[in-house]
Amino acid sequence: MSMSDGTDTDGGGRRERLVVIGGDAAGMSAASQARRLRGPDELEIVAFERGHFSSYSACGIPYWVSGDVEERDELIARTPEEHRARGIDLRMRTEVTEIDVAGRRVRARDAGSGAESWTSYDKLVVATGARPVRPELPGIDAPGVYGVQTLDDGEELLGGLARTRGRRAVVVGAGYIGVEMAEALIKRGYEVTVVNRGAEPMATLDPDMGRLVREAMTGLGVTMVGGTEVTGVLTGADGRARAVATGDAEYPADVVVLGIGVRPETSLARAAGLPLGDHGGLLTDRAMRVRGHEDIWAGGDCVEVLDLVSGQQRHVPLGTHANKQGQVIGTNAGGGYATFPGVVGTAVSKVCDLEIARTGLRERDARRVGLRFETVTIESTSRAGYYPGASPMTVKMLAERRTGRLLGVQIVGREGAAKRVDIAAVALTAGLTVEQMTALDLGYAPPFSPVWDPVLVAARKAAAAVDRAR
Amino acid sequence: MSMSDGTDTDGGGRRERLVVIGGDAAGMSAASQARRLRGPDELEIVAFERGHFSSYSACGIPYWVSGDVEERDELIARTPEEHRARGIDLRMRTEVTEIDVAGRRVRARDAGSGAESWTSYDKLVVATGARPVRPELPGIDAPGVYGVQTLDDGEELLGGLARTRGRRAVVVGAGYIGVEMAEALIKRGYEVTVVNRGAEPMATLDPDMGRLVREAMTGLGVTMVGGTEVTGVLTGADGRARAVATGDAEYPADVVVLGIGVRPETSLARAAGLPLGDHGGLLTDRAMRVRGHEDIWAGGDCVEVLDLVSGQQRHVPLGTHANKQGQVIGTNAGGGYATFPGVVGTAVSKVCDLEIARTGLRERDARRVGLRFETVTIESTSRAGYYPGASPMTVKMLAERRTGRLLGVQIVGREGAAKRVDIAAVALTAGLTVEQMTALDLGYAPPFSPVWDPVLVAARKAAAAVDRAR
Repeated sequence: MSMSDGTDTDGGGRRERLVVIGGDAAGMSAASQARRLRGPDELEIVAFERGHFSSYSACGIPYWVSGDVEERDELIARTPEEHRARGIDLRMRTEVTEIDVAGRRVRARDAGSGAESWTSYDKLVVATGARPVRPELPGIDAPGVYGVQTLDDGEELLGGLARTRGRRAVVVGAGYIGVEMAEALIKRGYEVTVVNRGAEPMATLDPDMGRLVREAMTGLGVTMVGGTEVTGVLTGADGRARAVATGDAEYPADVVVLGIGVRPETSLARAAGLPLGDHGGLLTDRAMRVRGHEDIWAGGDCVEVLDLVSGQQRHVPLGTHANKQGQVIGTNAGGGYATFPGVVGTAVSKVCDLEIARTGLRERDARRVGLRFETVTIESTSRAGYYPGASPMTVKMLAERRTGRLLGVQIVGREGAAKRVDIAAVALTAGLTVEQMTALDLGYAPPFSPVWDPVLVAARKAAAAVDRAR
Repeated sequence: MSMSDGTDTDGGGRRERLVVIGGDAAGMSAASQARRLRGPDELEIVAFERGHFSSYSACGIPYWVSGDVEERDELIARTPEEHRARGIDLRMRTEVTEIDVAGRRVRARDAGSGAESWTSYDKLVVATGARPVRPELPGIDAPGVYGVQTLDDGEELLGGLARTRGRRAVVVGAGYIGVEMAEALIKRGYEVTVVNRGAEPMATLDPDMGRLVREAMTGLGVTMVGGTEVTGVLTGADGRARAVATGDAEYPADVVVLGIGVRPETSLARAAGLPLGDHGGLLTDRAMRVRGHEDIWAGGDCVEVLDLVSGQQRHVPLGTHANKQGQVIGTNAGGGYATFPGVVGTAVSKVCDLEIARTGLRERDARRVGLRFETVTIESTSRAGYYPGASPMTVKMLAERRTGRLLGVQIVGREGAAKRVDIAAVALTAGLTVEQMTALDLGYAPPFSPVWDPVLVAARKAAAAVDRAR
């Protein structure tokens, strides 16, 4: 490899170079783990991040907006300087514009100077994350309309809130980001309206469980508008957003927040001919290697993952997966061995004191993959009924017909509801049947659970339903 | 069978009779479940309870004493009248004094009249519970010394506290009951001293984790005296307890609470020749049938259970097992089929805001059964570090050498610590390795967990330790 191609490889003693595209969770976890396994003498690590921040918690943004987290920098797990001190050549505000797979090099542009240059790699990590869904609607780019994907977005939103005198906020979308932003805006004293395409919020739940979320949010004073397509953002004479329009109504808004979810950011990968799945995410093997490419790994919000329950590919943009995948990539790129077997689809969230959790398959997921199942829903409490603070909890459970295998659990409740889903997440991973789950030795003491944990109550009822259907 | 033997069987149309000895969790769960499966026309159910209460939560007694639970009756899940309304002939204050296995009958004495009579059975459930360990020490039966096993005990203690002007309490024993009673007495404004035989409290934990409990309890103002054998209770001129004596010290006490644990109450079973294990508990098969006796079941605090992790028998007196076992017995006695596979040793507790949890094997348990293992301990937080209320959590994890199989987990922390042990409980049941656990898809959102759940952090470290030891 000569200098004429513009690469900056050492001319002398050859050490391998690992190039990482993307300076957030997956990319920097990979870089850090590779560095732990191989020192700078053996492995050079160059990472490119187009934004202003590295290794931050995007999941924390709603809590920064709400004021629960006071300082932006609390969301930053590791600064560029800290990465550099660990021997990672992290180049901020530098966007990779092309991956040359055949030439084993990437082209990057410095946002400051605009200069472009090629950097060769021996090993490549693609961790380009996700981009927010921003529908092509009139007014969607008007001032006063905010996304909440990045720290830059959060900063812009907070600046906007500080400048806005009005107190009416419209959140578009009622998924995790939407409901968390609704909480944040309530806490900041806004009148909040959430406009959602689905009839019920939280499409990651079945509608009967989503209904519980809607009722609770209504109880919190949020105006929930479901089954409604946003047709545009109306602007005032000053060009700023003034309302969100749907087919038949207008919802006045001093601030509009888009919480419509994200898609894999794989334009670079697509242009480079890397394999993408039906959801637009990169396809990898268990070691997080891009399929068909021995020296390219991918992880985080830009990849698809195997859903271990359905056996199908999904796009699940969550920081917890990004961190695990980064760790796996770094181990493999560093010469070790690790795998990311897949997900079971666990997710938890909250709106004020309402906790929402799900794992495994919803009814529609199970039907889509041809599974027949029994569904049960039970009401129980978070603590022994007589213990102060015991709060109601609804648990829905799906079990496969005949086998009785657990397929999914959804929980809506108050304190203690969300993390109970972990019981089901482990059971799904292990392939337990609901009958087996009835005997689980779960922690019991009156402050923590009724003598029959709500998950056990659901399992008993599900086992009985499977039994009857045999 | 003739009336001359004093039985009260029907002379005419024969229906089976199920006799239950013990009117608390296991016995009445069994009776209720059997009744659900078979109506009064098919199955007569007679239950004997020597005390004043049926189906109550003994685990709730500390919270009643503390005042968290206001009324005794809140701890009663189902009154005798409610059981009778469901077609169960529950005879209160009636103690079974003999089981005649060959004659298939039990003799019972009415506490009121003193009258004894025989009742024949077709099927028998032994659910005689446990009795508190009450060491043969001078003064142990003095007024002012209280046990806390039954509602009667609780009532006596509360009466005693109401009559006591002094504010010094000594709790003997620092297991679950001891630490929960310490909390109860703190809440009632007592100066609490806990005297414990072991060097550290909570012998169900390894001493390094017990130390964390001791430190936290000391921080709560409890005087913790460990490694000390109680030699007696000193009484005053009025005959009432005035201090707890150890070999070299006296701890002044206006009230003494015994929290030294329980043993299986199997004197009846022993006299009847039913098989007992090394821990003094009845031995049963998976269907909770007493070994060698087709028509006798046993469950609750009077039985031994299989520890699925060690493969050995244990005595684990917990309401959650009693309820499950009762359910299994009732199903089988009612003509269905159910099993209780065993326990993994999960237990949770709290002292004020300190949460304590354990499951699986301690170091000494693992050594005792010949297992070699790696041990790791990690510090993490209950929520994302930047999220308000994030509190420290210590997780200790044991994994078998070579196989990497999870052997046990202990957690000490604040909010969110205790029920996290359920993750490990399910993993133990499923036989997961710590390597497999590193990939668990646990619920993550900043209010509920760091991006790496503390259990995952421990699993990663344990997997690395197993790997190094290979």
